[in-house]
Amino acid sequence: MGKIDYIHTVQPGTGGIDDAFLNRYVLMSGERMIPYQWSMLNNDEKSGIIHDFRVAAGEIEGEHIGMVFQDEGLFKWLESAAYYVADHPDSPVRAWAQRAIDLAERAQQEDGYLLTWFQLKAPDKEFCNLLESHELVCMGNVLEAGIAWHHATGERQLLDVAIKLADHLCEYFMQDGPAGDLVPGHPGIEFCLVKLYRETGQEKYLKLAQHFLDRRGTDPEVLEKQHEREWDRPPIFPTWNTFADHTYMQIHAPVRQQTTAEGHAVRASYLYAGMADVYMETGDRELFAACETIWKNLTGKRMYITGGVGSSECGERYTGDYDLPNDTVYAESCASVALALFSRRMFQCTGDGKYLDTAERAIYNTVLGSVSLDGQSYFYVNPLEVWPDACEKNPSKRHVRPVRQGWYQVACCPQNTLRTLAGIREYIYYTKGDTLYVGMYVGGDAQISLQDRKIALHVQTGYPFNSTVDIRTDSQGAYTLALRDPGWSEETDVFLNGSRVEDCVREKGMIYIQRRWQKGDTVTLKLDMPARFMVSHPRIRANSGRVCLMKGPLVYCFEEADNGTNLSSLRLNPDAAVAEVYEPDLLGGTLTLSVSGLRIMEEGWDEETLYRPFRVKARKQELRAIPYCLWNNRGQGEMTVWIHSSGSEVS
Amino acid sequence: MGKIDYIHTVQPGTGGIDDAFLNRYVLMSGERMIPYQWSMLNNDEKSGIIHDFRVAAGEIEGEHIGMVFQDEGLFKWLESAAYYVADHPDSPVRAWAQRAIDLAERAQQEDGYLLTWFQLKAPDKEFCNLLESHELVCMGNVLEAGIAWHHATGERQLLDVAIKLADHLCEYFMQDGPAGDLVPGHPGIEFCLVKLYRETGQEKYLKLAQHFLDRRGTDPEVLEKQHEREWDRPPIFPTWNTFADHTYMQIHAPVRQQTTAEGHAVRASYLYAGMADVYMETGDRELFAACETIWKNLTGKRMYITGGVGSSECGERYTGDYDLPNDTVYAESCASVALALFSRRMFQCTGDGKYLDTAERAIYNTVLGSVSLDGQSYFYVNPLEVWPDACEKNPSKRHVRPVRQGWYQVACCPQNTLRTLAGIREYIYYTKGDTLYVGMYVGGDAQISLQDRKIALHVQTGYPFNSTVDIRTDSQGAYTLALRDPGWSEETDVFLNGSRVEDCVREKGMIYIQRRWQKGDTVTLKLDMPARFMVSHPRIRANSGRVCLMKGPLVYCFEEADNGTNLSSLRLNPDAAVAEVYEPDLLGGTLTLSVSGLRIMEEGWDEETLYRPFRVKARKQELRAIPYCLWNNRGQGEMTVWIHSSGSEVS
Repeated sequence: MGKIDYIHTVQPGTGGIDDAFLNRYVLMSGERMIPYQWSMLNNDEKSGIIHDFRVAAGEIEGEHIGMVFQDEGLFKWLESAAYYVADHPDSPVRAWAQRAIDLAERAQQEDGYLLTWFQLKAPDKEFCNLLESHELVCMGNVLEAGIAWHHATGERQLLDVAIKLADHLCEYFMQDGPAGDLVPGHPGIEFCLVKLYRETGQEKYLKLAQHFLDRRGTDPEVLEKQHEREWDRPPIFPTWNTFADHTYMQIHAPVRQQTTAEGHAVRASYLYAGMADVYMETGDRELFAACETIWKNLTGKRMYITGGVGSSECGERYTGDYDLPNDTVYAESCASVALALFSRRMFQCTGDGKYLDTAERAIYNTVLGSVSLDGQSYFYVNPLEVWPDACEKNPSKRHVRPVRQGWYQVACCPQNTLRTLAGIREYIYYTKGDTLYVGMYVGGDAQISLQDRKIALHVQTGYPFNSTVDIRTDSQGAYTLALRDPGWSEETDVFLNGSRVEDCVREKGMIYIQRRWQKGDTVTLKLDMPARFMVSHPRIRANSGRVCLMKGPLVYCFEEADNGTNLSSLRLNPDAAVAEVYEPDLLGGTLTLSVSGLRIMEEGWDEETLYRPFRVKARKQELRAIPYCLWNNRGQGEMTVWIHSSGSEVS
Repeated sequence: MGKIDYIHTVQPGTGGIDDAFLNRYVLMSGERMIPYQWSMLNNDEKSGIIHDFRVAAGEIEGEHIGMVFQDEGLFKWLESAAYYVADHPDSPVRAWAQRAIDLAERAQQEDGYLLTWFQLKAPDKEFCNLLESHELVCMGNVLEAGIAWHHATGERQLLDVAIKLADHLCEYFMQDGPAGDLVPGHPGIEFCLVKLYRETGQEKYLKLAQHFLDRRGTDPEVLEKQHEREWDRPPIFPTWNTFADHTYMQIHAPVRQQTTAEGHAVRASYLYAGMADVYMETGDRELFAACETIWKNLTGKRMYITGGVGSSECGERYTGDYDLPNDTVYAESCASVALALFSRRMFQCTGDGKYLDTAERAIYNTVLGSVSLDGQSYFYVNPLEVWPDACEKNPSKRHVRPVRQGWYQVACCPQNTLRTLAGIREYIYYTKGDTLYVGMYVGGDAQISLQDRKIALHVQTGYPFNSTVDIRTDSQGAYTLALRDPGWSEETDVFLNGSRVEDCVREKGMIYIQRRWQKGDTVTLKLDMPARFMVSHPRIRANSGRVCLMKGPLVYCFEEADNGTNLSSLRLNPDAAVAEVYEPDLLGGTLTLSVSGLRIMEEGWDEETLYRPFRVKARKQELRAIPYCLWNNRGQGEMTVWIHSSGSEVS
C-alpha cells in the first residue's frame, strides 16, 4: 500500500468565472451572500456566533447562544470568504475575515481545543459525549477554513489555529485507553484531516483520519458506552434516541464492510469522502472498494433525479432502495453538497467522468436551487413536488416549506451552499501529471499549474442552455487535455480549430486530447443535449406513470405560475415535441421548455363528490417548464418535477 | 324548538344475522373476539384493565397500569358483550360480563366518579385537566355499556352505575363558577348523555350534553387556562403541545360556527354525532345546519374511498381539503367507527339514504378490514397503499403497519370494531311512525316493534357480492317499508312477489312501499352494482392518473399475493372488461375481480441506473382484486387500492 497516483483539484484564485448561467450564482454569492451571512454571524438574535466567540475569548460576559454546533457557522463562512478573497484580494471581506480570525485565535484554548459551546457550558466535558456533541465535525471546519485562508492570502494565522487544534486531537484520540476507541459521532473531520496532511506534510493528521475510519463500527455501541460512562448531564438532544440509531451515524459496521448509503445523509457522504481521501493517500483498496459499492447503491437506488439524497425528514436520512417520495422528501441542501464532495473525490481516485456527472447533478439542481436569486433565502429541504396547502395542513409535510426560508439559528445549508458556490473552481479543473482535466463547463479564464508550467485556458459557452463549449488555450506546449464526456451526452463531437477530431481517446466518461498545443488552439465540444423526457426505474413507486424533462444536467420543473393550479392534473405525452426557448427577461435569463400537454378537467365534479365511476375529460394545455434550480423565485405556488404521462407509456 | 320527529334505531336482540358475507365477521366477533378481548382485559401485561379496577375497588394492592384512558377497554367490551348476550342469553359471556360489572360497581366512588387512573394516581385532581385527561369520553363508555346491558338483560346494575356517574357529572359541570365553563377535551360523552336521557327520561342529561355543546369553542383557551390554573403536575402527554392545537379538539370555534371536519378524527365525529343527537331532541336547527355543512366537507373533500378519515398520523387528524395520501395515511379504525356513528345519526335526522351509504362505506371497508379473519389481530391504521419495505425503513411511514398488529396497551380500535360488529343491527333496521326502514342489506331474521305491533322480516341475500335482496314479511298489516336505494345503484328495480313495482316512491336515497302486507309477501330489490372502475376528484393529488375498482359498497384492492411485487408498475385500462368470480375457498369465500392489465417491465434497467431517457416496455398481465376488507389475510405483502390507469384516461 501507498499513496496512489490520484487527480488533484485546483484551488480558487486561479482565474475568474464569466459564465452566462453560473454568473447569477457566483456573483450573487460574493456580492450578496457573503455580506448577508457575515451580518447574520454578527446578529445575536439570529445566530449569536460572533457573540459566543467573544464570550469564549473573555471579551464580554454572557451565556452561550445557540446549539452545540453553532461554531461551524464561523468557519464555513471563513472558508467561503477565503475563496472569495483569493479572487478579490482588495475586497472589504478580507477585513471582516481578519476580525473573525483574530477572534477565533483568541477564543482557542491553550491546549488547542476550540468549540465555544463546550468551553462555555461544559468545560470539564470536552470529548465526553461524542454521540451527540458534533465537536469533531465542527473542528473539521476550522481545518478547512485555515487551509483555505492560507491558500488565499498566504497567511498562516488561521492555519496555525487549525494545526494547534489538530495537534490536540491527535494527542487526545491517539492515546491508549478509552479515548483511543472513540470515533466521531458526526463524521466529517476525516477528509479535513487529510487536507491538513496534504497542506503540512504531517503524517499524524492522516494517521488520525485513518484511525477514526479503522475504529468506526468495530464496536457499534462505543459512543453509547461513552455516554453512559462519562456524560452525567441531560441529553444535548432530548429526542435523540428516537432517530439516532447505529445506521444513523454509519457506525453499524466497520466502514470497509458497509455496502449501502445509510443514515443521516450529510454524515454519510462526509464519511465516504474521508474514506476516498484516505484511500488516495494510503492505497487502501478495501476502503476504495467500500466507497465504490456504497456509491453504486447511493446513486443507483437512493438518489433523487435532482441529486437530492436522504428521503426521510426523521433523521434527515436514507431509508431503503427506491424509496424516493417527492412530497414528503427531505433531500437536505447540505446532503447534496456532501454528495458532490464525495463524488468529486471518487473522480480524483479514478478519473471516471461519471462521478462528476453526479457532482454536477447535485450542484446544478439541488445546491443551486437551495438559494434564491437574491441570495437571502434558502431551502434546507428540497422537494420535487410541492402543494403549499398540504405543506401547511399536513404534519407529514410540514418540514417541506413551499418557499425559501430565512436564516435558521443553525444555518448549515446556506453556508454549505455558499462555500460550494464560492469554491466552485474546485469542481472545474484538475491536474495529474501532464494532464489537465476540465470537469465542468463553466465560462471564464484559468491559469493552471501543470508540471511546473502555467497553462492558460479560456472557456466560452452557453452551457447548460447551449450544447457548445469552446476551450481556447493561450499557452503552448505538450500536454493532455481531458474533457468530461457527460453520461447523458449520447454522442459528443470534438473539434480542434474547427476540424472534427476523430482520433481522441474516449475512456470512462472522459475525452483525452494529447498534443503539442499552439497558442490560440481552440477545442470545441458539441454535446448531445436536447431536452429529453426522462423516466425513472420502475421500482421508484413515487414516479410510477410519470415523466420529467431534463436538458443536459438540468432537471426541469413545472410551476403553478406557468401552468395553473393542481399540477397533478396535467398530462404529458413523452412523444410530444419540446420547444426550447431562451427567455432573457425571465429569472435572470433562462431557457424554458414548452410542450403541448393535457389537463384533466374538473367539469362535472361538485363539492360533494370525491369518487365516481370512471369518466374523465381532458383539454389541451401548453405547458412550460423552467430549470428546477430556479423554482420559487416568483412567489408561493405548486411545483412538480414529475408529471403524469399520458398515452404512450404503455404502448 | 322541540324534539323533532326523528328515526329510531333498533337494538340488538331483535333477531339473528345469517348472512353469507357478514357471518364471517359477526360469528367471529362473538366466538373469537369477545373471549380474546376478555382475556386481554384480564392480562396485566397486555392491558392491566381488570387489575386497575381491582386496585380501585380496594381488592388488591398495586399501582395503576396503563394510560389515563385505560378504563375505556372495560366498558367498550361490556357494551359489545351486552349486544352479544342479547342474542345469546345463555353464553358464558354473561358471567364474565357480570364479574366485570360487579367490579366496576365496587370501583366506583361514593360520589359517582369512576376513572381508575385519577382515582389511583391523582385523586385530588379529578376534572382538573380536561385538556389531556380523556375523563369524559371514557365516562361516556360507562353510560353506553350500562344502557346496552340494561337492554340486553333487563338488569339495572350497570345502568345504575352509569346514572350515578352521570348525576355526578351534572352536578359538577352545571355549577356556577369555573367548572361551569369547562368542556370535554375529548368530545364523545355528549351523544352518550343523550342516550341516557332517552333511556331514563331525565332531562338533565340532555341539558348537560347541550351545555357542553353550547360552551364548546366560545373560549378556545378555556382548557389551557384550566391546565395552567389547576394542574401542577407534569403533563400527562409530554409531547401533547406538538399536535394538540385548538382544531385538534374542535374547540377552535363555537360548534354552530364550525364548517369543516377538523382535528383528531375520532373526537371530530364523536362531537358531530352528539350535535346531531341534541338536534333530534331539541330541534336546534343551527346545530343541524352545522352538522350538514361539516358532513359535506368531510365526505366531499376529506374522506378516503374506503370511508377512512384523518389523513395525518401526527394528531391522528384531518388535514386539508383533498389531501388524502394513500401511503402516509392514518385513517384510524376508530375514526371510521365514529364516522359511521355520525352518519347514522344524520340518517335518523333526515331519512336520507346517502348518510347510510357513508356509514356502510366506512363499516364494510375500513372497519371490517381492521380485523383479521381470526379476530385476533388488528389494523389501527388503515392504509390504501402499502409497500412493506418502505414502512420498515422510512420513518414517515413507520406508523403504517404492513400486517395487522396484536393487542396494543390501549386497544381502542379492536374494541371499537368489536362493538360495531356486535351491535351491527343498529345500522340495519330503523323505525318511525308506521315506517320500517331497512338501511343495510344483511341476511337474517328480525322482529321489529312498530307502533305496538311486532313486524317479522326475513332477509335473504348474497349482498354485497350479489345484487339481489329478498325481503319477506311474515306479519300482515298496513305499514310502510322503506328500503335504502344506494347512491351507487344507478337504477334499482323493485319487485313484489315477483312483479315489478312501478309506483313506489323514491326519495332521498330511499324507496318507500306502502301497503297492507300479507304474510309471505316478498319484496325483491335488484341493485345496479356491477364492478366499476372508479376515479377520484382531480384535486386528490395522490390519486391522479389512477383508478380503482368497486362493487356496490365494496372497495377492491390488489395484493402482492395475487399480482406479484411492485404494484406501482401495474396498469389498468378502465375500458377493460372485469370478470366477477366467486371463489368459495378464498378468504372464507369471496368474489374476486379479474381484469386484463399491463405490467411495466424492468428489462433494460440495471442496478446502477435510476433515471434514463423515456423508454418503457410493458407486457400483459391478468390482475386480480379482492375486497379491501379482506386484505392481509395471506401474509405480508404489498397492497394498493388505486392502480395507475393506462391509455384511455385522457382520450
